Amino acid sequence: MDEVIADTTAGMVQWYKKHFGGDIDYTKMLAGGSLVKGFPDEHQEQVRQQLFAAGFFRHLPVMANSVEVLEEMNKRYEVLIVSAATEFPNSLKDKFDWLAEYYPFFTWQQLVLCGKKNMIEADFMIDDHSRHLQYFKGKPYIFTAPHNLNEREYDRLDNWKEVGEVFLG
Amino acid sequence: MDEVIADTTAGMVQWYKKHFGGDIDYTKMLAGGSLVKGFPDEHQEQVRQQLFAAGFFRHLPVMANSVEVLEEMNKRYEVLIVSAATEFPNSLKDKFDWLAEYYPFFTWQQLVLCGKKNMIEADFMIDDHSRHLQYFKGKPYIFTAPHNLNEREYDRLDNWKEVGEVFLG
Repeated sequence: MDEVIADTTAGMVQWYKKHFGGDIDYTKMLAGGSLVKGFPDEHQEQVRQQLFAAGFFRHLPVMANSVEVLEEMNKRYEVLIVSAATEFPNSLKDKFDWLAEYYPFFTWQQLVLCGKKNMIEADFMIDDHSRHLQYFKGKPYIFTAPHNLNEREYDRLDNWKEVGEVFLG
Repeated sequence: MDEVIADTTAGMVQWYKKHFGGDIDYTKMLAGGSLVKGFPDEHQEQVRQQLFAAGFFRHLPVMANSVEVLEEMNKRYEVLIVSAATEFPNSLKDKFDWLAEYYPFFTWQQLVLCGKKNMIEADFMIDDHSRHLQYFKGKPYIFTAPHNLNEREYDRLDNWKEVGEVFLG
């Protein structure tokens, strides 16, 4: 969900600019391997706390073209939205409501909220973190995010148009 | 979680007796295949709505011996608590908080909140519903609940002492 269909980085940058107004260093997200590291050192704790706040995940922007591509994929595949969410207990209901609002064609049966993803059995997995892809027994794809640009281990999908080309032909 | 480590039936009966005071027919749970069917016809809709209410899953009684047995199993196995919870969006945070309170040895990485369970890969599954066990590729066990007494398809575990005998030897 985060950084694949939900633009968590954009949502955090919006929140940060409203509250602190400073500059974001996307190259530091890459070096640090997480979005939090892209924010000025003195505000990283507040940024991290925002991930735990009720409401943060409820209004994140959707990734461009993800709705149309997933609506079509949902007709041809058994699609699951698997989100590493239990680290952030206040995100659970927000993620459910967010998915229902922006992707109304998905049912509650298609959402999985978990911690690790190593118990998920499927044919394909699209994720922004190699830590979730590394145990996956199907075909893994890394979805491009500022923090994973140096990852070379997996086939890469840069955006949802590319996902559509791969999965919808 | 429900009917295996959380005594959802007992919690609902407690709530029902407090609000309506009537009698429960456990044989109707069996005939109807769900706990809701055990309550008088005229109150089944209220009982069903209670499953959607915030707070209901937060204070359910724990199943006898489940804490001690799971604490020991957690040292010897990679244990996951997989709950079909997304049908009841208000239960998500309640289930997280309930698990953290009563089973503090589990981490957030061990909780999976889903709809179906057919994407779960594991060696063993203990569940009260055959609909979750039927797609499972590991060894399935049915955990005895009033609604599943007629189920003959799976090896049966009646209580957590039996779980301990099987898994802790």
